[in-house]
Amino acid sequence: MEKGCRFGTHRVLEPQGVLPQAAVKIDNTMTIRANEILVDVTALNIDSASFRQLEEEAGHDMEKVKAKILAIVSQRGKMQNPVTGSGGMLMGKVAKIGEDLKGKIDLQEGDALATLVSLSLTPLKIEEIKGIKPEIDRVEVKAQAILFESGLYAKLPADLPENLVLAALDVAGAPAQTAKLVKPGDRVLILGAGGKSGMMCCYEAMKRVGPTGWVVAADRGEASRDLLLKNGFCHAYFAEDATKPVAVLEKALEANHQEEYDIAINVVNVQNTEMSTILPVKDKGIVYFFSMATSFTKAALGAEGVGKDVTMVIGNGYTKGHAEITLQELRESPKLREIFERLYL
Amino acid sequence: MEKGCRFGTHRVLEPQGVLPQAAVKIDNTMTIRANEILVDVTALNIDSASFRQLEEEAGHDMEKVKAKILAIVSQRGKMQNPVTGSGGMLMGKVAKIGEDLKGKIDLQEGDALATLVSLSLTPLKIEEIKGIKPEIDRVEVKAQAILFESGLYAKLPADLPENLVLAALDVAGAPAQTAKLVKPGDRVLILGAGGKSGMMCCYEAMKRVGPTGWVVAADRGEASRDLLLKNGFCHAYFAEDATKPVAVLEKALEANHQEEYDIAINVVNVQNTEMSTILPVKDKGIVYFFSMATSFTKAALGAEGVGKDVTMVIGNGYTKGHAEITLQELRESPKLREIFERLYL
Repeated sequence: MEKGCRFGTHRVLEPQGVLPQAAVKIDNTMTIRANEILVDVTALNIDSASFRQLEEEAGHDMEKVKAKILAIVSQRGKMQNPVTGSGGMLMGKVAKIGEDLKGKIDLQEGDALATLVSLSLTPLKIEEIKGIKPEIDRVEVKAQAILFESGLYAKLPADLPENLVLAALDVAGAPAQTAKLVKPGDRVLILGAGGKSGMMCCYEAMKRVGPTGWVVAADRGEASRDLLLKNGFCHAYFAEDATKPVAVLEKALEANHQEEYDIAINVVNVQNTEMSTILPVKDKGIVYFFSMATSFTKAALGAEGVGKDVTMVIGNGYTKGHAEITLQELRESPKLREIFERLYL
Repeated sequence: MEKGCRFGTHRVLEPQGVLPQAAVKIDNTMTIRANEILVDVTALNIDSASFRQLEEEAGHDMEKVKAKILAIVSQRGKMQNPVTGSGGMLMGKVAKIGEDLKGKIDLQEGDALATLVSLSLTPLKIEEIKGIKPEIDRVEVKAQAILFESGLYAKLPADLPENLVLAALDVAGAPAQTAKLVKPGDRVLILGAGGKSGMMCCYEAMKRVGPTGWVVAADRGEASRDLLLKNGFCHAYFAEDATKPVAVLEKALEANHQEEYDIAINVVNVQNTEMSTILPVKDKGIVYFFSMATSFTKAALGAEGVGKDVTMVIGNGYTKGHAEITLQELRESPKLREIFERLYL
């Protein structure tokens, strides 16, 4: 077996020189290289922006959606919506593991898995579309796909329902990074704490700061106050609009005995919340931006403008073990699991 | 003396609740609070985007530019170009230090300084514009300004020419962060190494990695190869277009004995160079983005797409002592100083 590029560039057909995600056409031949994994695919979870676009273009005719998906995959070698550019993820069973990877990764042939890299870069060949469930953007298929050596996946655990696992993996990056970042005794501020990602970050921060730390949760309104405080997901809570830095700073300091924070984590899904995250943090502290609404220049120039010597980190959706760390939260905390099952399934 | 907010929010007139930079009008009364500094201003260095806009609007009539600057400052209380939003910096002498700061900072009344925070947030009152030097975007004035407690400045040293100091302070953030980030033995990749900022980062990286480290410089063309290698500012050099991640990865590994890097520093001033910075770095390594052309989402989603467990940092223009660290480079290295005087004055 020949070895391929760990990022899959050997399958890029056009244009040359780019990574598979940026390619318009990739090679979906289902013969694996020594460092690839072949997956028998049972379902595609289409990215919701992509699914909505397909549905609208097809006038909500599911047969037309099916035909469009088949056309895209046959043309591009991957399920990347040409309008939205986005993909989704897939579920299936490991059919074959390349000889270079066998025994070196925590997968065995036959394992059930979900991919954590986008369909927009995953070689895919569909034999048959068996059904579409538009209410959950799911396409049931008989298909095969290739995972590159750099490709991320999560084994689907036997002890948790599949839908719960998928809902949690959707935001796996932020809580896992929180777990690695937060140290005992830290004072941590979490902006956007009421959302799915924010709640998991709060839970993880509480666990990591231990008895000497202090976790303050904030969100726009009062809706999440009781949920977070009563379940012990934070020590204190305040409600404020995260686009108002001066007001956030005042309330954040008040909630932390007038002291600055070691770490602030931003999971707010609106623009212009950079300064609210930067101001409450002490010099040499860490500002973690997980929101995709973050502006690089607003953060960089903003911190300089107020003379804040803080380390600002771009939230990486991947960190080693992120899926395991996140699923473990649901096993550990019946309260968190109950909230998840109630709100996100 | 009453104390003000360290970020200067007590001087925001409208709209309420924002920081001075975002305000359309701030209070430029030249009576200082206990934690403010009064500066007798001799010159404004207008941001080049702002100066160009003013010049064009005025049809290159310098009397009209003068009148426009006076109008902006009288209306806004600060020299923030309403079209570009940008400011610049100022030079002057310390006239008075508020009682809370006196003896606690490294400034004395009479010291010459340059501000390192933008004019777009600095209270300013102009008595007279004495002259304009359009070739260096400089406006000579009789004026006064206020520095907030959080405001950054650099004392102008007696042993270096003012123009050299200003050229270096312009990019002070990146080399100072490099100095703090790079450790002995590190393998460091610098993309955009041929520019002013890149060259200073190279110099600083070479100093910090010591005899066991390895610094690789890269830029688009061959123009900087000799300059960087002959002056000992890097161990190896390669030329590649930073928007081509696969090509950059191959050349970067080749230049580093086929190993991944501990740290990559991006000071490339074009878009779409995120993946070229991320791919050559090893897991748990650091990716430092200093380019204002960096896209937050491209970095975040890109690292996840290739399963890279790297820490990606937003380049903060400020870190403690950044001006001193940067000026020290010019004192230490006659070669660097000679290049600076030749290329950037």
